[in-house]
Amino acid sequence: MNLSLLVARGAIPALSVLAFAFPSLAQDDPLPSWNDGDAKAAIVSFVQTVTDASGADYVPPAARIATFDNDGTLWTEHPMYTQLAFALDRVKALAPDHPEWQTTQPFQAVLEGDIKALAASGEHGLMQIVAATHAGMSTADFETIVRDWMATAKHPKFDRPYTDLVYQPMLELLGYLQDNDFKTFIVSGGGIEFMRPWTEQVYGIPPEQVVGSSIKTEFKMVDGKPVLMRLAEVDFIDDKDGKPVGINSHIGRRPIAAFGNSAGDRQMLEWTQDGDGARLMMLVFHDDADREYAYGPANGEPDTKFGTFPQDLMDDAGKQGWNIISMKNDWATIFPSME
Amino acid sequence: MNLSLLVARGAIPALSVLAFAFPSLAQDDPLPSWNDGDAKAAIVSFVQTVTDASGADYVPPAARIATFDNDGTLWTEHPMYTQLAFALDRVKALAPDHPEWQTTQPFQAVLEGDIKALAASGEHGLMQIVAATHAGMSTADFETIVRDWMATAKHPKFDRPYTDLVYQPMLELLGYLQDNDFKTFIVSGGGIEFMRPWTEQVYGIPPEQVVGSSIKTEFKMVDGKPVLMRLAEVDFIDDKDGKPVGINSHIGRRPIAAFGNSAGDRQMLEWTQDGDGARLMMLVFHDDADREYAYGPANGEPDTKFGTFPQDLMDDAGKQGWNIISMKNDWATIFPSME
Repeated sequence: MNLSLLVARGAIPALSVLAFAFPSLAQDDPLPSWNDGDAKAAIVSFVQTVTDASGADYVPPAARIATFDNDGTLWTEHPMYTQLAFALDRVKALAPDHPEWQTTQPFQAVLEGDIKALAASGEHGLMQIVAATHAGMSTADFETIVRDWMATAKHPKFDRPYTDLVYQPMLELLGYLQDNDFKTFIVSGGGIEFMRPWTEQVYGIPPEQVVGSSIKTEFKMVDGKPVLMRLAEVDFIDDKDGKPVGINSHIGRRPIAAFGNSAGDRQMLEWTQDGDGARLMMLVFHDDADREYAYGPANGEPDTKFGTFPQDLMDDAGKQGWNIISMKNDWATIFPSME
Repeated sequence: MNLSLLVARGAIPALSVLAFAFPSLAQDDPLPSWNDGDAKAAIVSFVQTVTDASGADYVPPAARIATFDNDGTLWTEHPMYTQLAFALDRVKALAPDHPEWQTTQPFQAVLEGDIKALAASGEHGLMQIVAATHAGMSTADFETIVRDWMATAKHPKFDRPYTDLVYQPMLELLGYLQDNDFKTFIVSGGGIEFMRPWTEQVYGIPPEQVVGSSIKTEFKMVDGKPVLMRLAEVDFIDDKDGKPVGINSHIGRRPIAAFGNSAGDRQMLEWTQDGDGARLMMLVFHDDADREYAYGPANGEPDTKFGTFPQDLMDDAGKQGWNIISMKNDWATIFPSME
């Protein structure tokens, strides 16, 4: 087996192979897991443009804000959002304390693995699952629950921890932007407190740079100790129209670069694009059934509830000049190597 | 007139006088506008403790989160909150387009300067004023309105722009913490979008590190251009119980230092104190009628709607070990010098 095949299979980190084979190239290329092509060229050109202090499109470091969707943009979102897998696992873990769930939907469906009945419970059913698994505890206790689950749960297809299933090319992109004094933010439809326990370690993104959906919390004294209790009430949905709202609330200025992968990211890209000066908008396209997944109508596949990419988004991306990142063609590796 | 008097009157920046008189002292003292005393000693000791890499209470830079109330902690809040002065000025500016305001409360009260009638309109009246002056425009337009007002409005007592009436000792404290790799946040009951246009220039605090009260915004396309419209609906009140909630939402980790000046900051200090390791909680006490204002029952003065400091807060501060900053005794200067 030759070196490039080992890299392609993720058995050897691409960077270390390149460092072995082409020391100077490895040193110069900040994006070694990206194949040469339009996507990589657009990234490098944009960064050079906004960091060139003598150029007309120079952006001072403080204004170098880049926002990233998470599910499907930075890590795998199939066969279901990781947070949904977490919620279903929590229902199973909590079931012994709730014998009534054996005969009550949507819990019965989760416990019996009845996907059809679960889907039939709709948004109301999902909210019941969220309330049962995400609320009723303190923020500190929820963080512990998330950490414990992340440390043990494994993805059904890849048999690796979910935090291993982040995209190596996107890790390099985050690092490249951070090295160029960008402040990188996550702006995800996922739960803000589901992400914060691990984003710093995995992405180099601290909790204060994570924007997400949230439920309400309440400050109270419990036995003389201040706690924040998580309530079974939606506070904010950071998706679609909500993304520019979340960006404005948490960041307070407009990104100059935004990265997404689905219809839920459209408004974030529109909001980013409408600012003055150089802008970079990109969409990760899941067209790699061999190494990850291929899904979405724009890909000739059935639509999906997890990361839908309709044809009109693809059409508009072309019109707007948004760059498409083909996982199949633009990425030399998908996941970090197994150490 | 001798040098120290010039400094006390704010005619010469304290630092430049010290640099002239005692070059080495000026270089060594990061807090030249603070008189020697318990408050200054507590700050310096805390910073040395958490930055001593060999000490048991060392805190890595990423976790050095410090939160500051704004009104009455970083700048003057009397005779009324600056944002209220802004709202009243806006009512006057908009009145020609609203002839009905001449005979409709609470607007009539504002236009006639009838403080008693204004107070009688209560919270409902205040919300009407907020709706008329803070909502119905885009976030971009509101930012322009705030910038324009800040550039021209003057404080009634000091006849200086409001952004001049920030506390010189607190500017030095912010700088001292920032120089020691703290991330400094504002956590204010004031409007988040009222503060963000000027906090970076005045405090060195970028928009993404400002937490405040907010009204809802809505993303929409206007003539093919994406805008965020400000709605006449409260989103979040970042005061009292709301401060730890706002901290959790925006920062996602617990501060190790918190600074306030009123009953509205109590929960922020409690939340800060309850973490592990070294902590610093401080309250600015307005006891300087000569150089600024003296107010609050703990000061032997009548209570006030702007920055109330009840006696039980003073009692609890003593019990909890929170430091009181006496403006009269701890601060050698109050405001930055007039250049």
